[in-house]
Amino acid sequence: MSENVLSQQQIARMIDISAVQAPHGEGEIRDLIARASVYGFGSVHVLPAWVTFARELLPRGEILLGAPVGFPSGGHHSKTKRAEAQQLVADGVDELDMMLNVGKLRSGAEAYVLEDIRGVVGAVNVPVKVILETHYLTDEEIRRACELCITAGAQFVKTSTGWAASGATLHNITLITGCVAGRIGVKASGGIRDLDTLVAMYRLGVRRFGINADASVAILRAVEKLPGGVVRM
Amino acid sequence: MSENVLSQQQIARMIDISAVQAPHGEGEIRDLIARASVYGFGSVHVLPAWVTFARELLPRGEILLGAPVGFPSGGHHSKTKRAEAQQLVADGVDELDMMLNVGKLRSGAEAYVLEDIRGVVGAVNVPVKVILETHYLTDEEIRRACELCITAGAQFVKTSTGWAASGATLHNITLITGCVAGRIGVKASGGIRDLDTLVAMYRLGVRRFGINADASVAILRAVEKLPGGVVRM
Repeated sequence: MSENVLSQQQIARMIDISAVQAPHGEGEIRDLIARASVYGFGSVHVLPAWVTFARELLPRGEILLGAPVGFPSGGHHSKTKRAEAQQLVADGVDELDMMLNVGKLRSGAEAYVLEDIRGVVGAVNVPVKVILETHYLTDEEIRRACELCITAGAQFVKTSTGWAASGATLHNITLITGCVAGRIGVKASGGIRDLDTLVAMYRLGVRRFGINADASVAILRAVEKLPGGVVRM
Repeated sequence: MSENVLSQQQIARMIDISAVQAPHGEGEIRDLIARASVYGFGSVHVLPAWVTFARELLPRGEILLGAPVGFPSGGHHSKTKRAEAQQLVADGVDELDMMLNVGKLRSGAEAYVLEDIRGVVGAVNVPVKVILETHYLTDEEIRRACELCITAGAQFVKTSTGWAASGATLHNITLITGCVAGRIGVKASGGIRDLDTLVAMYRLGVRRFGINADASVAILRAVEKLPGGVVRM
């Protein structure tokens, strides 16, 4: 594999598919895990109450199991987030996507936001991504949030929960990748529906994507149709 | 006050106003408490991380302070919901609105849903309302959820979080009030914007309403304009 192409398999490995809306249950989770196994997606994310169920269906291996913390409002008590994170690790997750306390950030309580993230990062031995929910933030708030994530020791900053009215855009991805400048990873999520968007965000430095399972499969099929079945960078 | 009229004050007392969206912070909460004090609303609800802040602004009294548990996905681990409820009571809430595990209900795991509610109800000494998030449920699932709330000892069943695409409707309120038949209270929330809807739901048996603060004020102003400044039942 040459370094200036992206294969279908490499793209699949960067994609996290999830079933983290309120109504999602057994059927959606079985489907998620089946698709991850067939297509080789990087991880599946389920709501906390479903982690033990998903872990039984998906033994530890290449496909990671993730779950959200303080999701999707971010407004849970810091102690609740910390205890939830520990419970999820005990239940078998490989990684956690925690929600930033957006209301505290917008109220200027940066020390609170920092300790909120540190509390989770320090409580577990798995990578923690921090979701900003960019829909509610100004550019300056996004920059500040990125710095707080880095200071707190998070592994990734992630744009969106999928619960707000907008998600990752080329504008906010440019802002975030520019701000973090390789110091931590960037996960783009929310509203990504096609290969062109994924490739544009990859070029900006994104290495993880949270994408709806149907759209993820469509993206892989689009790669198949390219000359040589790869994306040329 | 005659029994066949509803005064502005009586209506205000039935209304809970809230700031429970991700971006809500200090400004929204100060505004909420100011409006509750001026208009005499029944309660204010804030996200868990804001309870201590709100409690300082709102000493214990006629206006109640509430917060949501396992909100708004309902998909948190039962132990997390229980611990969160206990934390909120320690922080000073007068009541809790917990989110049902919709995914478990839709997957037929009724015993799980029952224990999930019982866990919270049994862990605290304040009234617990259970939010169904009717948007995702069939009529039959709503009926089953109501029975589970009653069996588990909840004080109220509530329609919606305000995070889903639809909320309380005359259809689902008729269904719920018919099902619970006075055995527990009914709180209608999500999408209620005018006095006519409130009165129609009151006639069906609803005694608590979760309404956007702006719409709540508009509803009270509509009562003022009626003959005698009251709603005749």
